[in-house]
Amino acid sequence: MTARADIERNGELCIAWNEAGLVPAIAVDAISGRVLMLAWMNAEALERTLATGQAHYYSRSRQRLWKKGETSGAVQRLRELRVDCDQDTILLIVDQAGEGACHTGARSCFYRRVARGADGAIRLAFVSSENPPVACEASGTEGEQG
Amino acid sequence: MTARADIERNGELCIAWNEAGLVPAIAVDAISGRVLMLAWMNAEALERTLATGQAHYYSRSRQRLWKKGETSGAVQRLRELRVDCDQDTILLIVDQAGEGACHTGARSCFYRRVARGADGAIRLAFVSSENPPVACEASGTEGEQG
Repeated sequence: MTARADIERNGELCIAWNEAGLVPAIAVDAISGRVLMLAWMNAEALERTLATGQAHYYSRSRQRLWKKGETSGAVQRLRELRVDCDQDTILLIVDQAGEGACHTGARSCFYRRVARGADGAIRLAFVSSENPPVACEASGTEGEQG
Repeated sequence: MTARADIERNGELCIAWNEAGLVPAIAVDAISGRVLMLAWMNAEALERTLATGQAHYYSRSRQRLWKKGETSGAVQRLRELRVDCDQDTILLIVDQAGEGACHTGARSCFYRRVARGADGAIRLAFVSSENPPVACEASGTEGEQG
């Protein structure tokens, strides 16, 4: 087992997969710098992403490898892949093709912010800069299609 | 159970906690726009964050609520909190106090990128713009202190 200080400082890729063999992967738009989405990767998804230069994830709902944009065309070309200090999270800097990363049609999946209503209650408000969906269809998976 | 299309479109905060009662939370620097870190939140961490305007997380290693910067002073003042389409990930836009978000001293936890060595092998290279740590100490937790 590699010591923690080594995992944080050295040059060895040594992903700390969780008990399901996955880690969260954050995709960031290379041009705007904004966070597009969070998905999950297993070892195969990471390997395919590095080998092809196209973002691949692991769909927990469908329990299979998933090339981002395989049906929608909204592929993500990898510019850079990073790991965090303890190597249990991956960051992808990508060129996002198509309208955006979110299956709803929004540019980013993070198109709603928490806001207080006039009555002080917590509500969600759409963030106009993220081109939030005006309509979307339920499709039974967990937001990972496309 | 709220229908998926409603979860994606409506104004109700309805977090899809995982089986451990947690969701990943991405912290983004309000000024640079860069991703600082990924940690985990439970319902109490979310509530405390919204109530105090200071980022709180749940430490999986210590199994307790954790106010970011409680020991290091590197607190995160919340500017905006967002949810993703299916509400299983939180995004915090924060003003990061101190040197940075990472317990190693780096500005961002994502201070290493995957690179190919001269021999074609995959290695990690430091990203100079993230002020990567030149030295750090092992402390036995999972990178969540500070």
